[in-house]
Amino acid sequence: MDKKIWLPEHEIPTHWYNVVADMPNAPTPPLGPDGQPIGPDALSAIFPNSIIEQEVSAERWIKIPDEVREKLATWRPTPLVRAFALEKALGTPCKIFYKNESVSPAGSHKPNSAIPQAYYNKMEGVKRLITETGAGQWGSSLALAGQMYGLDVRVFMVKVSYNQKPYRRLMMQTWGAEVHASPTNLTQVGRDILAKDPDSQGSLGIAISEAVEEAAGNPEANYALGSVLNHVLLHQTVIGLEAKKQLAMVGEYPDMVFAPCGGGSNFGGIAFPFLADNATGKNVRLVAVEPTSCPTLTKGEYTYDFGDASGLTPMTKMYTLGHDFMPPGIHAGGLRYHGDSALVSQLYHEGLLEARAVSQIRTFEAGVLFARTEGIIPAPESNHAIAAVVDEALRCKETGEAKTLLFTLSGHGHFDMVSYDRYFKGELEDYDYPEEAIKASLARLPKF
Amino acid sequence: MDKKIWLPEHEIPTHWYNVVADMPNAPTPPLGPDGQPIGPDALSAIFPNSIIEQEVSAERWIKIPDEVREKLATWRPTPLVRAFALEKALGTPCKIFYKNESVSPAGSHKPNSAIPQAYYNKMEGVKRLITETGAGQWGSSLALAGQMYGLDVRVFMVKVSYNQKPYRRLMMQTWGAEVHASPTNLTQVGRDILAKDPDSQGSLGIAISEAVEEAAGNPEANYALGSVLNHVLLHQTVIGLEAKKQLAMVGEYPDMVFAPCGGGSNFGGIAFPFLADNATGKNVRLVAVEPTSCPTLTKGEYTYDFGDASGLTPMTKMYTLGHDFMPPGIHAGGLRYHGDSALVSQLYHEGLLEARAVSQIRTFEAGVLFARTEGIIPAPESNHAIAAVVDEALRCKETGEAKTLLFTLSGHGHFDMVSYDRYFKGELEDYDYPEEAIKASLARLPKF
Repeated sequence: MDKKIWLPEHEIPTHWYNVVADMPNAPTPPLGPDGQPIGPDALSAIFPNSIIEQEVSAERWIKIPDEVREKLATWRPTPLVRAFALEKALGTPCKIFYKNESVSPAGSHKPNSAIPQAYYNKMEGVKRLITETGAGQWGSSLALAGQMYGLDVRVFMVKVSYNQKPYRRLMMQTWGAEVHASPTNLTQVGRDILAKDPDSQGSLGIAISEAVEEAAGNPEANYALGSVLNHVLLHQTVIGLEAKKQLAMVGEYPDMVFAPCGGGSNFGGIAFPFLADNATGKNVRLVAVEPTSCPTLTKGEYTYDFGDASGLTPMTKMYTLGHDFMPPGIHAGGLRYHGDSALVSQLYHEGLLEARAVSQIRTFEAGVLFARTEGIIPAPESNHAIAAVVDEALRCKETGEAKTLLFTLSGHGHFDMVSYDRYFKGELEDYDYPEEAIKASLARLPKF
Repeated sequence: MDKKIWLPEHEIPTHWYNVVADMPNAPTPPLGPDGQPIGPDALSAIFPNSIIEQEVSAERWIKIPDEVREKLATWRPTPLVRAFALEKALGTPCKIFYKNESVSPAGSHKPNSAIPQAYYNKMEGVKRLITETGAGQWGSSLALAGQMYGLDVRVFMVKVSYNQKPYRRLMMQTWGAEVHASPTNLTQVGRDILAKDPDSQGSLGIAISEAVEEAAGNPEANYALGSVLNHVLLHQTVIGLEAKKQLAMVGEYPDMVFAPCGGGSNFGGIAFPFLADNATGKNVRLVAVEPTSCPTLTKGEYTYDFGDASGLTPMTKMYTLGHDFMPPGIHAGGLRYHGDSALVSQLYHEGLLEARAVSQIRTFEAGVLFARTEGIIPAPESNHAIAAVVDEALRCKETGEAKTLLFTLSGHGHFDMVSYDRYFKGELEDYDYPEEAIKASLARLPKF
């Protein structure tokens, strides 16, 4: 059998799968500042209508525009790979497959949503997309997508990352985006903060506030978000839809599916198309893997909370550690979100999804094993899924179960080599579950 | 038509193509310190027998061991891509195809030879491979290959690169290689240099000397070289062999083939299989692209010279700027070699290959255009081929010629973002053709 299972370009899915159609209960609505449900109109200042329609749609299949499929074909379909060398090193009876999303030009799954978001904005006459970025995975994906459709892209990058992590900033600039170290003088939020603290190093909360302020105040500009929201998870279902086709080509079907889970778009992207099968009689276990230092699903509370640290966004019902909980500075920056997607949260609450938490050092052990067997050096986020798969494969070695395991390799680690350096030097830390900080943050939540 | 033309894994070539079989004249022999031809035995202290046999073989087709094809399948066959977006941006009547060698785990074409070299050494009982590396493309490829076959890999990395370019060093360490900042205390050469200058920042010449000394003095260790030699070019012919099949699948054949040319392995890898067609009646133009700052083929002399800066290696007849010519510090580190492969040099001398030189800033202009159209951020070396292709496509736009152009995208630029930063800041330099330095270096060559 080949290691890599390829699909031709015409097999890029023609439709996204919308899990809302198969949920046992309707999604919980977002709430406004008054605690009352808000409608789609509240989003129209910062999102195009087609995106808002997708955000609230209950249609099972939503057509992917040909112009989007054509751009996705720059790197899609992505390979599904049988991890023969990893299996051999583990001595496991399991078959391990991974969907390699690291092959996109930006190096992760993020462009799967950046491209349709740029497309719909372009179609509705928007000239500029605005977003925030921490380490730069999302910002670089939006820069790539904006360039493809001739849109200006402005990225507010947390100042400390802007200065300490220049490589992804340079990637964004290579694709023609404007990148600003946030806080900036371009927004009122930024000016207020700089007036108080000219040396502010910024935060993701500040960067979001700057991006939203500028998008809301400019009729030709819109905001774009890289995870959490329903439409982002929708766009990412190309991952799972392709993986199902590829597994079918070799006569396989997974017993368990794993993905790293921060805001939920990568996990939802691979898991939801399999959840559809569970709705019609299959029984595949879908496992979100998160860091023990930011254990949203495994230790959080299922309640209404803000999406951002500053409490500017609508509230959604989700597993949360409290919006002002500040997770430890682990290297998997994409998994440091205090909450989770409303869809993932609700489905997890209803027992249709599982979650596991893995400690930082264990994830790097697994990532190095993967690099030394399969060749590819994974992103720290991806190492979470790998660690959970390795644990399962070793468990099966004990019990003799020959399961088929599937996971998303969400990105490569080319811009994370400093994290590997710290791992090799023994400088990485495992963090205790920050129980008190989480309790304190949850206690500060508004009650309705 | 699809953008990407895929081959299944069983289409990985079963044999390498040896251009020696189709050369109008036998290759010139290497010479020893006395100016007399040396035989294969002189290499046996540092290379395994199977490699030495390949180095001197005149067989047209040399079988690729199944165990090598299986490891190459980690990423091969690589995609052949039709650069529709670049064509559109240029408004050219040409069809542009690129063979994307950046998809290997190490990010370049270099593992195509690192894997067979590691394999043959393993088969002959060698325990450790030793090499030198500048920026780290070759060192990381050998680290990957050594890991695959369970060989120890020791890399002497020029100290200034070791300190200034930690990312590729970390990549090597992730794949389990030992990386030492050269000069080291591990060799006599290193100790002598450190005794004179404890702060020596090293050079590629010193690193080669250290690697060769250690390999020659240890019966369980061998040396491995990443370009220049006949067997390395042989291993790289998988690039051109696959590209021919892929073009045939869409009914195309190139009018011109371009590749960056430093030591010659990437250029030979794509060009030689097409040169075989020219021997049987085709007429494809094969263009090596080099930097104007290190214009080996376009401005060098065709004469016997040493392969290394210190004059320790045998001499080969090649286009050279003089072995102690120090090229300006351009960002395409892989193209800073003073000479060229003996095979490429001889075929160029006989008029069967062409060469063009491009200045540094022009290569980055072309690379940024490529990133903004095709998505992938190319390595600075690859930008040379892109610049030559863009120039040709624009020339054809003037004349109305609808040529089919093929080039190798030899690597991605993920570890070269600092070079792009300097380009965007206007800090990159174009260097004048260093005529006096080259003349002086050539004048110092030994005469026989």
